[in-house]
Amino acid sequence: MEKNHTSFAMKVNSSDKQESVCVFGTGDFGRSLGLKMFQCGYSVVFGSRNPELSSLHHKEIEVLSHAEAAQRSDIIIIAIHRDHYKFLGKLTEELQGKILVDISNNLKINQYPESNAEYLAELVPGAKVVKAFNTISAWALQSGHLDGSRQVFVCGDDKESKQRVMNISRTLGLTPLDHGCLVTAREIENYPLQLFPMWKFPLYLSGALFIFYFIYYALRSVIHPYVTQNKDTTFTLAFSILNHAFAGMAVTLLALVYLPGLIAAILQLYQGTKYRRFPNWLDHWMLCRKQLGLAALAFAFLHVLYSLGLPNRYSAKWKLANRVIKQVKSNKTDPFLASDVWRYDGGLTLGILGFFLFVLLGITSLPSVSNMVNWREFRFIQSKLGYLTLILCTVHTLVFGANKFLKPPPLVWYLPPTYVISLIAPSVVLLLKFILIMPCFNRPLTRIRQGWERNSLSKKIQLGNSNTEV
Amino acid sequence: MEKNHTSFAMKVNSSDKQESVCVFGTGDFGRSLGLKMFQCGYSVVFGSRNPELSSLHHKEIEVLSHAEAAQRSDIIIIAIHRDHYKFLGKLTEELQGKILVDISNNLKINQYPESNAEYLAELVPGAKVVKAFNTISAWALQSGHLDGSRQVFVCGDDKESKQRVMNISRTLGLTPLDHGCLVTAREIENYPLQLFPMWKFPLYLSGALFIFYFIYYALRSVIHPYVTQNKDTTFTLAFSILNHAFAGMAVTLLALVYLPGLIAAILQLYQGTKYRRFPNWLDHWMLCRKQLGLAALAFAFLHVLYSLGLPNRYSAKWKLANRVIKQVKSNKTDPFLASDVWRYDGGLTLGILGFFLFVLLGITSLPSVSNMVNWREFRFIQSKLGYLTLILCTVHTLVFGANKFLKPPPLVWYLPPTYVISLIAPSVVLLLKFILIMPCFNRPLTRIRQGWERNSLSKKIQLGNSNTEV
Amino acid sequence: MEKNHTSFAMKVNSSDKQESVCVFGTGDFGRSLGLKMFQCGYSVVFGSRNPELSSLHHKEIEVLSHAEAAQRSDIIIIAIHRDHYKFLGKLTEELQGKILVDISNNLKINQYPESNAEYLAELVPGAKVVKAFNTISAWALQSGHLDGSRQVFVCGDDKESKQRVMNISRTLGLTPLDHGCLVTAREIENYPLQLFPMWKFPLYLSGALFIFYFIYYALRSVIHPYVTQNKDTTFTLAFSILNHAFAGMAVTLLALVYLPGLIAAILQLYQGTKYRRFPNWLDHWMLCRKQLGLAALAFAFLHVLYSLGLPNRYSAKWKLANRVIKQVKSNKTDPFLASDVWRYDGGLTLGILGFFLFVLLGITSLPSVSNMVNWREFRFIQSKLGYLTLILCTVHTLVFGANKFLKPPPLVWYLPPTYVISLIAPSVVLLLKFILIMPCFNRPLTRIRQGWERNSLSKKIQLGNSNTEV
Repeated sequence: MEKNHTSFAMKVNSSDKQESVCVFGTGDFGRSLGLKMFQCGYSVVFGSRNPELSSLHHKEIEVLSHAEAAQRSDIIIIAIHRDHYKFLGKLTEELQGKILVDISNNLKINQYPESNAEYLAELVPGAKVVKAFNTISAWALQSGHLDGSRQVFVCGDDKESKQRVMNISRTLGLTPLDHGCLVTAREIENYPLQLFPMWKFPLYLSGALFIFYFIYYALRSVIHPYVTQNKDTTFTLAFSILNHAFAGMAVTLLALVYLPGLIAAILQLYQGTKYRRFPNWLDHWMLCRKQLGLAALAFAFLHVLYSLGLPNRYSAKWKLANRVIKQVKSNKTDPFLASDVWRYDGGLTLGILGFFLFVLLGITSLPSVSNMVNWREFRFIQSKLGYLTLILCTVHTLVFGANKFLKPPPLVWYLPPTYVISLIAPSVVLLLKFILIMPCFNRPLTRIRQGWERNSLSKKIQLGNSNTEV
Repeated sequence: MEKNHTSFAMKVNSSDKQESVCVFGTGDFGRSLGLKMFQCGYSVVFGSRNPELSSLHHKEIEVLSHAEAAQRSDIIIIAIHRDHYKFLGKLTEELQGKILVDISNNLKINQYPESNAEYLAELVPGAKVVKAFNTISAWALQSGHLDGSRQVFVCGDDKESKQRVMNISRTLGLTPLDHGCLVTAREIENYPLQLFPMWKFPLYLSGALFIFYFIYYALRSVIHPYVTQNKDTTFTLAFSILNHAFAGMAVTLLALVYLPGLIAAILQLYQGTKYRRFPNWLDHWMLCRKQLGLAALAFAFLHVLYSLGLPNRYSAKWKLANRVIKQVKSNKTDPFLASDVWRYDGGLTLGILGFFLFVLLGITSLPSVSNMVNWREFRFIQSKLGYLTLILCTVHTLVFGANKFLKPPPLVWYLPPTYVISLIAPSVVLLLKFILIMPCFNRPLTRIRQGWERNSLSKKIQLGNSNTEV
Repeated sequence: MEKNHTSFAMKVNSSDKQESVCVFGTGDFGRSLGLKMFQCGYSVVFGSRNPELSSLHHKEIEVLSHAEAAQRSDIIIIAIHRDHYKFLGKLTEELQGKILVDISNNLKINQYPESNAEYLAELVPGAKVVKAFNTISAWALQSGHLDGSRQVFVCGDDKESKQRVMNISRTLGLTPLDHGCLVTAREIENYPLQLFPMWKFPLYLSGALFIFYFIYYALRSVIHPYVTQNKDTTFTLAFSILNHAFAGMAVTLLALVYLPGLIAAILQLYQGTKYRRFPNWLDHWMLCRKQLGLAALAFAFLHVLYSLGLPNRYSAKWKLANRVIKQVKSNKTDPFLASDVWRYDGGLTLGILGFFLFVLLGITSLPSVSNMVNWREFRFIQSKLGYLTLILCTVHTLVFGANKFLKPPPLVWYLPPTYVISLIAPSVVLLLKFILIMPCFNRPLTRIRQGWERNSLSKKIQLGNSNTEV
């Protein structure tokens, strides 16, 4: 399909009366965009400081001086670095009433006090400046390999100019998105420089958790045996330690998805209104809950792969063989303990069902799937199914932990086993949730969320209205 | 990106000539929507019964009486419960020619004889009523956490009014979808109250199948040994019974995806036309085939997790140890049987390949993926690959079953093993399919599906045309 | 939701002033489309050669002669096979100025010298021809089961006519996509005949690789033992051979995703410019890298399923039992070798992490996900994460291979083990990549990709500009 789009576009307009476009600047992106527009049926002219020196490998595309080129079209694409915009100030007359399309990007986020497009609008007051095309890659335009995003964010103060630029991008096979006035240009200019901004917190948190669990487990299972018994168990670093770390991270991160909502509820109960803003850290935490949840799912997936891979391990086979040999030598057969089956198999079942629901949550967070459900369905999945997943995973940890606690390993350097550490966050979350769904807290909370305010006189009267208004 | 959209939108229009919007009602959703529109650059005025008592925490937003507020704008958002619409009838004069946007929702599906929007249109005959925004959550609007659907279904009889409301929703960062005339308002009002309507049948069916398989397996493997040999095997409830139930459900549900198509074909062959409607139950069954297939995939996924987890179980290790000890004690080594390898490993391979194709089917049913394939490709995947999956899964069951049948366990209370039960539905489907692809049935069916009718005189003549017309 | 869309659409326009549409031809697709438009509120009239003989089961829909029907509407849907278009030439007068919608499809790709729509435009010079609806299935229209693509590609030389046809398809619940002028009709007509064109090369390549690995492994592990020791090991065909083949295919295909990019870089370095076109084979290879990567992921997934299923196998259990029995009989216990743990568990860990990243790559290639990332993020994932995946998978193979090489199995008929074969492609790719990121190659390459050309005088001057222009 990608290929089709491109080749479709190449013939577009070929029989229409040709619209003409001017491009200032013969740099790489300017040339790519100009050639692409030419292929899509536009008549293209370039404006350059040294028109006689610029060859474009195309006889049908002229290269003129800036002033000459500007007269050929009322749409001018400014393919010049911001640092060299100055000379455009001298062309104010030629650019009067023209649509100037600012396609520039910066090297750093918020590099200049104002956005490039606004700076351009200031320099050439009589022109209509439109910001567009900066999110598209020159290489993608040339090669037609538009596998990444085809979205072109467009902004500008003149609606008609915006519309014309949006039409051009549609003709090039791209998807224009109107983002309002020119003041939003800054955000459009920052967009291509972002590298997963919403993932920063979840990734750093995951990193910190991993280091914590790794060191913690290493202390208990590698360093302690070495110090006290001079036993070398470094080989656990290759597998067991990772499996335990990923399991702990998954359940902890999942709990941290639901914690901010509970903190928000407590704040709302305390403040008696929902109209006060949350502190910034809470707001940011709430905004990246989806990413936290997906990170948790990723680690749960790793934990599942590791756990299913357990019997493939050299040491698993060796241990099983050794156990049998011991039984044979001592002429004793271990009895079959139904209670052990319940604990092991039950723990496995809880883990499998928890992971299954977790995958369901992940699938419904795919943009194309979540777009097809209404709010009631979305809340049902993300809240009801989410808590069920958390409960299953917590009990799964508890059962496997309990298994160990009943034959308790001695406390190592006062450090409880990893299981206990992993259970802290989910236990806190489930406890808070349990408290908050009790009627004495749930009822006022529901009222607050419907708009009721505790400390406002006028609101009390408005409460009388609350059955009247939506 | 979600965040961007919101913050982009916040500055939209800030320098455009301000459009003004009026909101009737200062309840939660009315205030959320009003504030959001204010943030997006609209000049907003509220209409209230008690304007002097309503505080909106915003100095720039006025609260006036309904009649006064109505004069400020030609778009009025009616953020009032339907039960209180009556008073609008008295404002007919002030509302003459205005665009009234009905954003109300009901508490139950089909709560009132006519939709709220149609009722509003009746009350205020001179106004142009547009239904919109009822699918959006107030909380989502306020917080900007638009993770759920951004779709705004819009309907109304006046095209221009609809267009203006759609423009507003675009400015708020939402995705308007035109759904035609005001008569469709009922469906738009029912939409947010739905909870996975297409999933009801597949979920109930899955529940019933699960209970059936659970009881059936418990009868054979828990209750029977207890009654006849007083042996306690309740520990199988934690793992084995679930694995068998999920396997049986997966293959049965997958067969039930293809059964309605075959029944439809038989009906068409019998009736000699494709222009007669199918009975309602068949129609509904056909419409939820996708959901049935996804449910089948979910249970297949669970079955795979359980099966791969088998060697991790306490009892698996105990059994293996015990077998070895027995061999050692009796001083006999079990021979390596190549035929057993073929049966076990072949069964595993069939299951793995079947599951692999099943996952492929699932991925191609994702909306964003199925949108990129044409009809020929879609049919190829869902029909050809689907039947191949069914065949692989059926033979997988058969091979593992056969394995047991060759050393047949005695019939338990006249109940055949679960394997046999699981094979009923897929066998019926594959048999029917095999019959229907035989030329004597396939040829007339193809002609019927191209529009030929057996019992129609005029059609016979039309048949002569059938090469002429598409 | 699918159902909603349809039922919404059914009532659309029912109270608007009715627009009328004429359909020429009463064949299956013509009737389906006509009835659908009727249900969506259009007034529909059919044109037929034998109007008196055509019954449409609908009293409100008239069937007239072509000439009469044409007068009823200015939009005429031509639901006739191209072979019978001729008679339209005689109706030139009646069709003057009308919008003719060509909905026809051919049986083969590029069946006729010109597209059906262009042929129609030639036949009826005074009409405005629009190509549309050919990608929609008649069955889907009738039944409302629009699970496949709802996309309607529309092209035509008259913009207003296109707009009207696009509005009709929106009313029918479909998604129109403007594809420019009528010359693109050929591609729209070829589209529904395609069967995964971009997948052809990856699938054939996968097939060839599978046959190669299968025969290679069979030679070494089945035929050789049979010929030299008369030992029957055919039972490995059911499982082991597939697992090894899938593993080799996955890592080889993944390497082949990155090879064309490296070849392109070498070509660019050699030619000293990026403006020369790549040879066709390289271009095609680069365009189907995504499909190659997804095929590699599919085989990696199969390899993971097989590997996790290993301990479930009859022979795995038998071998373990046998090893224990041997140890018991010889009264020797195998020592626990930490180095073996490192090799086995380390290999497993590398494989698990590699597969995890591979799945991440797969998820981000879903259209709805890749649409939400910017180019910087897309390149980061597909290039950085992609190479990391390749490295992990290569080292995973190497570690498991090394494991075997240290206790080297004798060369079999001069054939090295499969491991070695699987490592060829990834080693070449990683080596080339390592060479190309060395500054002496990377620096000129970066300059070339920014638009610099080695052998062009005018370019050298332009290079001076390169800081000025984007």
